[in-house]
Amino acid sequence: MVRTLAFFGPVGTYTEEAAILYDPHAELKPFPTIGAVAQAVSSAVTDQGVVPIENSLEGSVNHTQDLLVRQSELCIYNEVALPIRHCLMTKPGMDASDLQVIYSHPQSLAQCREFLERTFPNAQQVASLSNSTAVTDMLASELPAGAIAPQRASELYGAEIIDRNIQDNPNNMTRFVVLALYDHPPTGKDKTSMCLSFNQDGPGVLYDALGEFAKRGINLVKIESRPTRQSLGQYIFLIDCDGHREDQPLKEAIEVLNGPNSVLTVLGSYPRWEAGA
Amino acid sequence: MVRTLAFFGPVGTYTEEAAILYDPHAELKPFPTIGAVAQAVSSAVTDQGVVPIENSLEGSVNHTQDLLVRQSELCIYNEVALPIRHCLMTKPGMDASDLQVIYSHPQSLAQCREFLERTFPNAQQVASLSNSTAVTDMLASELPAGAIAPQRASELYGAEIIDRNIQDNPNNMTRFVVLALYDHPPTGKDKTSMCLSFNQDGPGVLYDALGEFAKRGINLVKIESRPTRQSLGQYIFLIDCDGHREDQPLKEAIEVLNGPNSVLTVLGSYPRWEAGA
Repeated sequence: MVRTLAFFGPVGTYTEEAAILYDPHAELKPFPTIGAVAQAVSSAVTDQGVVPIENSLEGSVNHTQDLLVRQSELCIYNEVALPIRHCLMTKPGMDASDLQVIYSHPQSLAQCREFLERTFPNAQQVASLSNSTAVTDMLASELPAGAIAPQRASELYGAEIIDRNIQDNPNNMTRFVVLALYDHPPTGKDKTSMCLSFNQDGPGVLYDALGEFAKRGINLVKIESRPTRQSLGQYIFLIDCDGHREDQPLKEAIEVLNGPNSVLTVLGSYPRWEAGA
Repeated sequence: MVRTLAFFGPVGTYTEEAAILYDPHAELKPFPTIGAVAQAVSSAVTDQGVVPIENSLEGSVNHTQDLLVRQSELCIYNEVALPIRHCLMTKPGMDASDLQVIYSHPQSLAQCREFLERTFPNAQQVASLSNSTAVTDMLASELPAGAIAPQRASELYGAEIIDRNIQDNPNNMTRFVVLALYDHPPTGKDKTSMCLSFNQDGPGVLYDALGEFAKRGINLVKIESRPTRQSLGQYIFLIDCDGHREDQPLKEAIEVLNGPNSVLTVLGSYPRWEAGA
């Protein structure tokens, strides 16, 4: 059966590219917000949903993190890491040297600032609501215009790509998570995402908790503190580690950390993303 | 003498509001990028500079973090936490019920999505390059238009505020850091920001390092891992703790962590921001 997959839209964005990379055969449905994707999955309107969780330049997508922390129905079923490769595109047949206006989301314009200063110092930069609407804004423009957008958007709207990989920083990656009502069975190459909070405060509580991983040889791949919404001084910790929650060492650590002093919630165990896998 | 203060511009943004909150008497100079602010400070064009480092909804500003990690000249001299209070503004004397177009940065439009759906379901949302240019876009519009922007922008451009605090989430705060060529002398209520990296890999290295803080009773207020640019699996850790780097317990921990197994760089010690202080 074909899987239905909600994604944070509109069509033609990097999130749609990630959804296609994750499952080229899925039936894709765009939703206007990250919350609406979560809603679609938790109410079984779609089987799964794809949302961004972290960009190597812009940082964590806290909407997604907060959403995972504040509910108990949704799990992380998988992850996808997508290199962000901005393309410059125009109406077919246009001469690049004519461009007077360049449309994109302000974040993408900022990520191509050096390229634009070097190549189109006199073109006016105009903001669009998304990387995808930049292309429709460009096509509707009365002036000779370009758009900075993902390759996917050029395919959808019939724009012509005149330059690729124009982002200033080559290490521009976004990590997406696939949400579902269940997480993934063990594969032997897994990661687990968790949320850890403490019932008491003090210098040593985080240290003691990390000891439960260290003494079992469990490698932490990411740790991030986030303020709780109850009080400014209080933090929760979002932790990614190697291994599956059903692997014996991790299973033990999880049991110990659900004790009188701390609460550990598993957000999901899932296969580690490997490029080209 | 009046302090000169670079800030990530343009004028009329939240960063300018933060700069004014930090030092109402300073001479303010806008710069177009976070890197240009850093450059202004490191080349002594200005005394200090204000840049965003963290938003409670959008996460860390990795441009600022990476910039601090990759250089050794600039220190964090101070911090400012600003509640983000979006205002809806129009040309003076306009009737709010007439609005057909609303301009703002896409991030601000997204942060006011529920307000806009409830109050102006039929107004067209148009992207601007910054919260501040939203106001000039609105003033230049031929249609009855509004802009979502900081109060500061209404003062600069003579726009009329017709609604305040329109962001959907009341916990919308941005933390800014003040960059200088030196950090702050001890005040007794200090924080220290550090960057920690390891020369070896393995499950226990972070745990052992945090032990150096825990056994000296030093409270960690924030910990975040960031990929290094050499290799995808390698991380550096950005850590904020209570205390000044000249306080004896922290001084000891810093010395121990600059050993054969790890490198600890102090990004700066500075007074903890207290609202209304």
